[in-house]
Amino acid sequence: MRTANNAGRLSLVHDDRILDVERASDGLFTADPMQAFARWDELTAWAATIDIDAHPGSSALADAALDAPSPRPPQVIGVGLNYADHAAESGLPLPTEPVVFTKFPSSVAGPDVDVVLPGPTVDWEAELVVVIARGGRNIPLSEARSHVAGFTVGQDLSERTVQWQGEPAQFSMGKSFENFAPIGPVIVTLDELADPDRLAITTVIVSADGAETEMQNGSTDQLIFGVDELIARLSTTIELLPGDLIFTGTPPGVGAGRNPKRFLVAGETLVTEIGGIGHIRQRVVGGQP
Amino acid sequence: MRTANNAGRLSLVHDDRILDVERASDGLFTADPMQAFARWDELTAWAATIDIDAHPGSSALADAALDAPSPRPPQVIGVGLNYADHAAESGLPLPTEPVVFTKFPSSVAGPDVDVVLPGPTVDWEAELVVVIARGGRNIPLSEARSHVAGFTVGQDLSERTVQWQGEPAQFSMGKSFENFAPIGPVIVTLDELADPDRLAITTVIVSADGAETEMQNGSTDQLIFGVDELIARLSTTIELLPGDLIFTGTPPGVGAGRNPKRFLVAGETLVTEIGGIGHIRQRVVGGQP
Repeated sequence: MRTANNAGRLSLVHDDRILDVERASDGLFTADPMQAFARWDELTAWAATIDIDAHPGSSALADAALDAPSPRPPQVIGVGLNYADHAAESGLPLPTEPVVFTKFPSSVAGPDVDVVLPGPTVDWEAELVVVIARGGRNIPLSEARSHVAGFTVGQDLSERTVQWQGEPAQFSMGKSFENFAPIGPVIVTLDELADPDRLAITTVIVSADGAETEMQNGSTDQLIFGVDELIARLSTTIELLPGDLIFTGTPPGVGAGRNPKRFLVAGETLVTEIGGIGHIRQRVVGGQP
Repeated sequence: MRTANNAGRLSLVHDDRILDVERASDGLFTADPMQAFARWDELTAWAATIDIDAHPGSSALADAALDAPSPRPPQVIGVGLNYADHAAESGLPLPTEPVVFTKFPSSVAGPDVDVVLPGPTVDWEAELVVVIARGGRNIPLSEARSHVAGFTVGQDLSERTVQWQGEPAQFSMGKSFENFAPIGPVIVTLDELADPDRLAITTVIVSADGAETEMQNGSTDQLIFGVDELIARLSTTIELLPGDLIFTGTPPGVGAGRNPKRFLVAGETLVTEIGGIGHIRQRVVGGQP
């Protein structure tokens, strides 16, 4: 199953068609995407009975106005330094526990939003984002998958100067500006992903003149703490809630790790893609002088 | 006005009486405490017309089951090292920007919950908590007060070993265990506080045999970034949302700052009080061996 948020309404997606869930289910499910997570198994079972392409209520996905598939997550948990190849590149020791911060939920945005630069050192981090369906505390590793609604694509944008100012470092501030957590375009359930532990994840910058430069090209097989392990470990401290997002970390190739360092410039477009899920696209806009 | 959450129902409090808002308003306001913040001015105006003590629907406050007055805050913003006397005691330089972390919202709890120790180094921090009514970005300093619902009492409990493990330090994990953000008993609007910039704030530990030891005794006049300034500065980055909580920092006297260090022990009771608002009371319970 692939779900999306079409202008605030829970929808199903197949290929290039999209279907409104409340209307197609005669009100069995409400339109609010946040209400779906608590009834995820029911929704999945119902969706399996629907032929989206042939449904008279379906419309062209290209005409949809997609917003974040979990638009008001109760909690957004960010995990830092979670790719082995990125840690090796950084020369830093592998973390022994997940490094956790938040992106405050008001930074969550849809897959096509513009990003206004709040400063000169805004950097990209392509991330696989886990969406939680069933919440809980102390979730056993063996049951972690049963708590997952599915995966979506996320960009963990960071203003690096703000992030690293002060002591302790201000991760949660530097990563929470407006539209700094775009996600989408869809949530894909695990059964639709051939190998969820080996997903290709890329960031491409398209310059104002259309030239494309690949900045990140990694695989989720490099995750130090995989999805199941993150759920098990995080839930020993934090009660996970339906609709929560876990940003699972980023592969090598961020701007701050380059020599010379390279940050986003107005006029560029950031394209973040994960194989089997899709891509999100952010146009970079200059801030106030 | 003083509002409370009585077993999930928005209520008004005066002296030792409590009144259910939905019933007393004939449904003008809903019972959900989270729905009240978006209509805070309306609620305040209506509450001013009600004589709670004389109302036939009011009952004894002592019989109420108080829960957190903002039980599902969209965001919980913690501010560290924000008392000048605490910073001086620590020998640390005064911060030039608020030091920000989150307590994940699932750690929010009511004023009378027990706290199970997840480790041997759990510490107290009495804090004035600002509750946001009207959200916004880039809120001018001069308008900050108009965004405030009121103040409540909070404890920013921290497992210090978890908080300081790793690099960067894990503030958001160490401060987000179950019931680590108890708040209450009421939200007091600004007009009911004689001098909101000079509130007495204390933490007392009551031992199992009933002996009381005052651990913190400060005043909000020591805040480096006062309430208005926090709202103005935080909202340059984070969009504030109705029901958000800002934990504004703690005065001197935490356990980790003592010589020798002193942490919470099972059987003790933690009483956190702010003059003009009230107190919250946490019984400390041993964790699993």
